[in-house]
Amino acid sequence: MTAKIEKVSVIVSKGSLEGIYPALIMANGARAEGIEANLFFTFFGLDAVHKAKHEHIKLATVGNPGLHLATWAGGLPGMSAVMTHYLARRMDELDIPPIPEFVELIADTGAGLYACQASVDLFGLSKEDFVDQVRDIITVGEFYDLAAGGQIIFT
Amino acid sequence: MTAKIEKVSVIVSKGSLEGIYPALIMANGARAEGIEANLFFTFFGLDAVHKAKHEHIKLATVGNPGLHLATWAGGLPGMSAVMTHYLARRMDELDIPPIPEFVELIADTGAGLYACQASVDLFGLSKEDFVDQVRDIITVGEFYDLAAGGQIIFT
Amino acid sequence: MTAKIEKVSVIVSKGSLEGIYPALIMANGARAEGIEANLFFTFFGLDAVHKAKHEHIKLATVGNPGLHLATWAGGLPGMSAVMTHYLARRMDELDIPPIPEFVELIADTGAGLYACQASVDLFGLSKEDFVDQVRDIITVGEFYDLAAGGQIIFT
Repeated sequence: MTAKIEKVSVIVSKGSLEGIYPALIMANGARAEGIEANLFFTFFGLDAVHKAKHEHIKLATVGNPGLHLATWAGGLPGMSAVMTHYLARRMDELDIPPIPEFVELIADTGAGLYACQASVDLFGLSKEDFVDQVRDIITVGEFYDLAAGGQIIFT
Repeated sequence: MTAKIEKVSVIVSKGSLEGIYPALIMANGARAEGIEANLFFTFFGLDAVHKAKHEHIKLATVGNPGLHLATWAGGLPGMSAVMTHYLARRMDELDIPPIPEFVELIADTGAGLYACQASVDLFGLSKEDFVDQVRDIITVGEFYDLAAGGQIIFT
Repeated sequence: MTAKIEKVSVIVSKGSLEGIYPALIMANGARAEGIEANLFFTFFGLDAVHKAKHEHIKLATVGNPGLHLATWAGGLPGMSAVMTHYLARRMDELDIPPIPEFVELIADTGAGLYACQASVDLFGLSKEDFVDQVRDIITVGEFYDLAAGGQIIFT
């Protein structure tokens, strides 16, 4: 007999579309099951909750062999925008919201959103740079306190 | 006294050679120790179990400073294929199987292989697109049920 | 009531600056809280403890939309070095040490550093290639034994 998972704390460290979506889907899937969920945005993952950037998140088309594009094609001007647009349309058809709306929706389910203190300092940011859903800027130590008793998922 | 790990559930989210191998090695290493293991393929990680793609997985040569290639060299036509070939030969010498055989071998040890429902929908795929070793297409919530009582490793 | 986290085992699988720093920050943050910490270097993550490479780790400027550089700009000769230099200066201002010193500092706090046997074999390396802080080269199975009773964080 294994007990149900009670809490999931997802660390979001990447600033690409394919880096952020899996994190949001893991957190959202947890809330849908009644599992407590926290999101901890660190390094380039901060873009997902950055007011000036969260609407401009793109797919990585170079360095992403998963797209099965030739390397030179991935580097063509505009290719990242084209692929991002294609994926966005597919997501829309499937009722998967764009990142800003998805973050808001997850926060509305009661998930806790936090920005990483060290990364905020590194990029010279402050609380005002982030969307209102970010509850607080916390240290890694405070994150471990929050995550205790659950699963940590680093994305 | 810390109890032994009883279960490992590895999420495979990347479609590159250097993204997929560590996931397979973590799952295989678990089974070798008698630890229960699950693999959950999501986003570009689905390529690892996709019949038409699993034999064509490449190393990312651009956006991968770990290779210590000049950025312009990483983008040269054919460079990804050259590096992938080099690594494949080294793996062969070390008896590390190519991805399709490795997936089959891990499934044969009794590990459970699952594809992520949201990603399958996103890319417009179905059960027939995947190798026979994939037991089922499941939701994130079902994944959490499977993973309860063990470690989740997101790769 | 959820018990405090007692142990954190961080797997370092990437060889880029933005891949390695979050891993080191998670391990260092754990030690600062009195949490036991292990670092397991695998695949390109081995660069972080490789004597000949650990001073030359760079930021990925292509395939990293988090930088919000145009793809063609990320590929310009020298761009990775420029961005790496910029970030290094910011880190210096914030007293975040360069990777070699950071690894040493974390080892000095009592964290255990280990290299992955399979990856060491893959790249044809041996114990002598690594900094002295690496205690041992261990298998994935031995890593699971070390990590039992704690959180595994794959970065």
